[in-house]
Amino acid sequence: MNKWEENVRKVVPYVPGEQPKDTNVIKLNTNENPYPPAPEVREILDSFDESRMRLYPAPNADVLVDSIAEHYGVDSSQIFVGVGSDDVLSIAFLTLFNSDKPILFPDITYSFYDVWADVYGIPYKTVPLRSDFTINADDYKCENGGVVIANPNAPTGVFADVLVIEDIIRANPDSVVIVDEAYIDFGGETCLPLIDKYENLLVVRTYSKSRSMAGMRIGYAMGSRKLIGYMNDVKFSINSYTMNTVTQLCGAASMKNDSYFRESVNKIIATRERSKKRLAELGFKMTDSMTNFIFASPQKKSAEYVFNELKKRRIFVRYWNKPIICDYLRITVGTDAEMDTLFTALEEILNG
Amino acid sequence: MNKWEENVRKVVPYVPGEQPKDTNVIKLNTNENPYPPAPEVREILDSFDESRMRLYPAPNADVLVDSIAEHYGVDSSQIFVGVGSDDVLSIAFLTLFNSDKPILFPDITYSFYDVWADVYGIPYKTVPLRSDFTINADDYKCENGGVVIANPNAPTGVFADVLVIEDIIRANPDSVVIVDEAYIDFGGETCLPLIDKYENLLVVRTYSKSRSMAGMRIGYAMGSRKLIGYMNDVKFSINSYTMNTVTQLCGAASMKNDSYFRESVNKIIATRERSKKRLAELGFKMTDSMTNFIFASPQKKSAEYVFNELKKRRIFVRYWNKPIICDYLRITVGTDAEMDTLFTALEEILNG
Repeated sequence: MNKWEENVRKVVPYVPGEQPKDTNVIKLNTNENPYPPAPEVREILDSFDESRMRLYPAPNADVLVDSIAEHYGVDSSQIFVGVGSDDVLSIAFLTLFNSDKPILFPDITYSFYDVWADVYGIPYKTVPLRSDFTINADDYKCENGGVVIANPNAPTGVFADVLVIEDIIRANPDSVVIVDEAYIDFGGETCLPLIDKYENLLVVRTYSKSRSMAGMRIGYAMGSRKLIGYMNDVKFSINSYTMNTVTQLCGAASMKNDSYFRESVNKIIATRERSKKRLAELGFKMTDSMTNFIFASPQKKSAEYVFNELKKRRIFVRYWNKPIICDYLRITVGTDAEMDTLFTALEEILNG
Repeated sequence: MNKWEENVRKVVPYVPGEQPKDTNVIKLNTNENPYPPAPEVREILDSFDESRMRLYPAPNADVLVDSIAEHYGVDSSQIFVGVGSDDVLSIAFLTLFNSDKPILFPDITYSFYDVWADVYGIPYKTVPLRSDFTINADDYKCENGGVVIANPNAPTGVFADVLVIEDIIRANPDSVVIVDEAYIDFGGETCLPLIDKYENLLVVRTYSKSRSMAGMRIGYAMGSRKLIGYMNDVKFSINSYTMNTVTQLCGAASMKNDSYFRESVNKIIATRERSKKRLAELGFKMTDSMTNFIFASPQKKSAEYVFNELKKRRIFVRYWNKPIICDYLRITVGTDAEMDTLFTALEEILNG
């Protein structure tokens, strides 16, 4: 190793779900939405004057921020936007978890939390879920430098009642509690109303799942004006202009069409419930997912075997060779037709 | 202050140049390009299938990376892309300046360097420029945790010969040297060929100036495969998908039209040289800028007075009320027509 390399921050990077280049596959591995974004987004691309690209974007992304504020009935000063919820969460970690005490999050949860903690040098302690993958609020009632809860949780799909979440927040007035609601639109109940009651609560959302815009990278957070102010100070110290002009406009257009949004979400919920029944018939054990994916364990063959057999048939789902969850597959809810193809393949794999 | 706020990282954020909402102004304050991007960018917006937005973008942005690699004749593994060069530089600082020794950069330079150092807790020492704003390579031949040089420098516009840059790199085999070439396309000579000679050299570029795409947020860096690999590891530990699909395609389209690029850059150079003469006639003292801005000091009235008088006339330039540079204005090179309006206003202000 050269001497200059001693000064380099070395990390083990997060490995995202496979993005097959081949488009002739059924892609149920990264929780993408099977439906296109709101039609107004197409209108933005058509009407956008490309000569505006020469100018820097609005640094505060006000058109987008205002559309989110209006949608949720909160003040614009309570909204932080970023390049996907990963950007939002990363800045939240960097800004709000700046103590020597460990932050707490479940042992089974979004696999980026420990990665951010590592890259920013934040001490952390993972808290085991119960054996049914539910959260025990009492486990979060000890000294800590912050708490992060994904609700519904990933990859389990399990939703914790808002009373459980509030119990955790109430017990932690001295640290920031982040609730990552990436999947909340698919059936859970949001804890958003609590941001007016608890100044130290941050609720994080994304356009990547329910709004069909993973490819555009938009995430946002809602919290007290004070919390959002601190995050913006750090954000403006890293990159004043993160969200490009086209994306800001597309994001605002999506937020304004609520009926399209609800329709698309409801279709996914209907397909999910139908799929749960079908998977149960195929002998899968599963959680009662409130997300756009199903966390399901095949009982007749190993999860790894089923994962590989599906891949051979060009059907991609997600599998982790890790303790506790190695018996499960995470299957994104696609269209009805995609799910039917999946079920046919599963029948063949499990009964063949 | 609440107890949870004690855990918050508190920074003084960078204040970007004013972005007036009023479009009826002459905006010469943030070094934007007066000409639109390559026409192929329009074609991308028209032909882009918006249903692709539901899918995550290619995490390695390969279409864009490959177009840059091809343009410069380097390998794709030597290219890092980010959301503007601010994103690229921020990740470079976080990754490559992870020691207890201070990093070095000029006292007068891009005002974000000390902001990143502060936010990431990197010790730094600023090195005074000579009185003519040139760099003395010998000042960088002491123990350090890294070196950052903007070449041409901002806001001075002064270009340092590649021999001076190589002198600094040669003296620093044990730390990483970043050369920020945001403005190199407007007349300077790049040190890019040196990346094959020095594994610890990182050259940073942007689409925001010469490629008329500040609004789309694209920056990139070129260096050894090893250096780029370390940066990608950190990048993938913060946000796997930073650059959205539309932006990746627009960036590649721009990179492929070299004749449009050269034409647009040459127009700006011609206007700059004409403007230098005109400003000299108006009694300005100035550096020999090799950028798309002119760093000029009015001799008859104070810079602050001229700045405010221009603003009253809806002409925005940049002024810093800071030691050493408080006698100067930084004037972005606009169209010939915009510059003529500026000169008429300056005549009025200086001779009125």
